[in-house]
Parts: sequence; C-alpha cells; structure tokens
Amino acid sequence: MPGALGARAEGLAADLSAVSSLTLNRISIYLRCLRILSERGVRRISSQELAQRFHLSATQIRKDLACFGEFGIRGVGYDVPTLEQRLSELLGLDREHPLVIVGMGNLGCAFARHLEFNRRCFRVVGGVDVDPQTIGKRVGGLVVRPTRDLRRLVRETGAEIALLTVPPEAARQSYDALIEAGVRAILNFSPIRLPQQPGVKLKNVELRSQLEELAFFLRD
Amino acid sequence: MPGALGARAEGLAADLSAVSSLTLNRISIYLRCLRILSERGVRRISSQELAQRFHLSATQIRKDLACFGEFGIRGVGYDVPTLEQRLSELLGLDREHPLVIVGMGNLGCAFARHLEFNRRCFRVVGGVDVDPQTIGKRVGGLVVRPTRDLRRLVRETGAEIALLTVPPEAARQSYDALIEAGVRAILNFSPIRLPQQPGVKLKNVELRSQLEELAFFLRD
Repeated sequence: MPGALGARAEGLAADLSAVSSLTLNRISIYLRCLRILSERGVRRISSQELAQRFHLSATQIRKDLACFGEFGIRGVGYDVPTLEQRLSELLGLDREHPLVIVGMGNLGCAFARHLEFNRRCFRVVGGVDVDPQTIGKRVGGLVVRPTRDLRRLVRETGAEIALLTVPPEAARQSYDALIEAGVRAILNFSPIRLPQQPGVKLKNVELRSQLEELAFFLRD
Repeated sequence: MPGALGARAEGLAADLSAVSSLTLNRISIYLRCLRILSERGVRRISSQELAQRFHLSATQIRKDLACFGEFGIRGVGYDVPTLEQRLSELLGLDREHPLVIVGMGNLGCAFARHLEFNRRCFRVVGGVDVDPQTIGKRVGGLVVRPTRDLRRLVRETGAEIALLTVPPEAARQSYDALIEAGVRAILNFSPIRLPQQPGVKLKNVELRSQLEELAFFLRD
C-alpha cells in the first residue's frame, strides 16, 4: 500500500512544479490539521467538518485537493491517515530534512529551539556565527560553530536547507557562502532582498513587512 | 510641504482599502530600500536603478507606485526623501506603534529584542507570559508581566498591535484575550489558524509552512 501511494504521489509530483506558493502553504496547513486529527484518533472527515474545525474554506479545500488527485469519497469524506500520508509525500515531507542556521543571534537561537523547526522531518543540526562570544555556546541540542566551518558543517550534516538570520550587512556574503557550501534551499529572515540563483530556492520572510501591513490597517 | 503631502496621502488612502497584501508587502520593501538610500545620501533614483540595486522588478515598481499617484518625473526618477515620506504616510508609518508580545518563550523573547520590531515607528513595550519562571524576567527593555495583566498593559501602553507567540493549545484563549483587551491588529506565530474577527486585522505567519515549501522544492 505505501508503495502504491508512493508511486501515485510521484506521478503527481511531476505536475506540481507550477503549483503556487499560496496553494503549497494551504496544503501545509491542511496537513497540520490532519495531523492534529490523527493524534486525536479521528479517522474520517468531510471537507465541511475540516473547514469548520480549523477556520478554513470547504470550497477551497476541495479545489486544492482536487488538483492533486481523487482523495475523497463523495458523501463519506477523506480518510485521515491516507490523506495525511499522501500530502506528506507530495510536499517531500516523507524524509528528514536537516537544517543549519547562519547567524546565532536572538532570532537564530530562538529558531534553533523552536519546536516547529525541530519535529517531524525537520531538525536543526547546526548553527554558525562570526561572534567569538557566541561561538562554542550550547543552544538547544547544538554547539555554535564559527562561520568559517560552514562548508564542513553542511558536508557533515547533509543539510540542504538553511535559515539565514544574520544582520542585513552580512546577508549577501552569508548567502553566497551557503550556496558555495551546497545548500539548496534558504529561508532568509534578514531584512534585505537577495538575488535568486538558479537551482536554489530562496524564500524571503519579511517579518517587518508583515508588521507594516498591520500598521496600514490601523492608519486613519 | 508636509501638510500638502499629508493631505495627498490621506486623499489617496481612501482608495487603498482594497490594496492586496502582496502589493503592501512590496511597498514595505520599496520603503526599506529608500531608507537605505537616504542613509547613504542618495537623493534621486530611477525605477531601473532601484530595481537593480535591490533585486526588484523595475516594471513592478512603476506599476505599484503608479497606483498611489504620480511620484516620479519621467527621465529624472524619484526624489528619494519625498517618496520615502509619502510611502511612510500611506502605510501609516508616520507615527509610533507600540507592540505587546503574548508568550515570552524563545520566539517571544527573540522578537522583544529584534531590531526590526524596535525601530522607526515600532517598539515592543510589553510582554506577558503564564509561566511563573518567566514572569519578572528582564528581556531587552521590558520586564515580563503575568498574562492576567494583559488588559492593564494594553491600556497603559496604548498598544494596538500584538505578536502572538504562545504554544498552539494556548493560542485561541490568548487571541480572545487580546481582542477583549482592545488590541486591533495581531501577528500570529502559533501554528494554528485563528478565526478572523470583525474590526481586527489578523495575519498568520506560518513559519513551518515556509519551511515545508522549501522541502517541496527539494523533493525528488
């Protein structure tokens, strides 16, 4: 059965390269909801119930899931464990992804300990910094190493994903060093834009912009 | 001159309620770039130069800014300080916004000290937690107070914006408490969806979903 599901997911994955960030983020959310249901022992759920319990849109759920195949049975709903497994496979979450953090300041240290970055298929396995006071510090399960060790750290841990939490003036150099070290996907929390590079997935998380959007709502 | 600009921004703001999150986030980024230019003493810039220096799209810049009025002069470009001031006004960033943080764990403490949440028009003025070990702790410029003081804290500080960084099981209750306390805009970092409420702006920052999007890119 897992084999059949795997093949199915693989066949579908080929069509998925054009899927938008927004759709992927919704799929992530559905998956998180399904995991909560699983932990509570729920085996079946309709799109309506799923929507109601987690403040989502039932129409959107049906539309999003329909893109990826026939998961539900009309009048019966979705089988929770099967859907959970298929969505995991679709998102590439059926294996562990080791993460490294570049910049072990406040944000880097918080992320090293952050539960959402350290469970199921994600695990922070290393962190580097240039500050001699920070190097050698134990943070969560790791010991901060000097930035010059980045390439070796990436090789040792097999990390393909990095969180970039350095000050803006160091962002570009750290980004280049990560790519040089062979990291293929980067979540950038520095408040500057970095250039996209072929073969590397870069996501800019604009925390300040999120806040400015709230300020925009409050203007008057 | 500031009066004229203010009136202009106010007149335009009326048309802005339908502006999308994506556009607003781009405007935030332009503003950040303009500030960097200002600090470096740059007085004038064309959309092409702006795009090149900050890895943006010149066409998109012209299109976005055109929505808000005639800011540039053909063949001359934008006047940096004027554009910076107008965009600040448009986004409601021409006054200070005090922030409170609910949940002073790793993430809450990091945000209390995070520079991007503590400069120009944003300032973290208070943080609450339920943990007796955390209450009373000095973090950055504040002392953590008990969650039961939230309403008083909001009244004392005039905070209209909150960052929600509690564990998922506490998110709903904290959210309701924030709305009850009179907070009007909330950035939610808890990994669960909260229901939108009328008159309150809620933004969910799905850090885990961002990471899952990277995993999706790496699948194969």
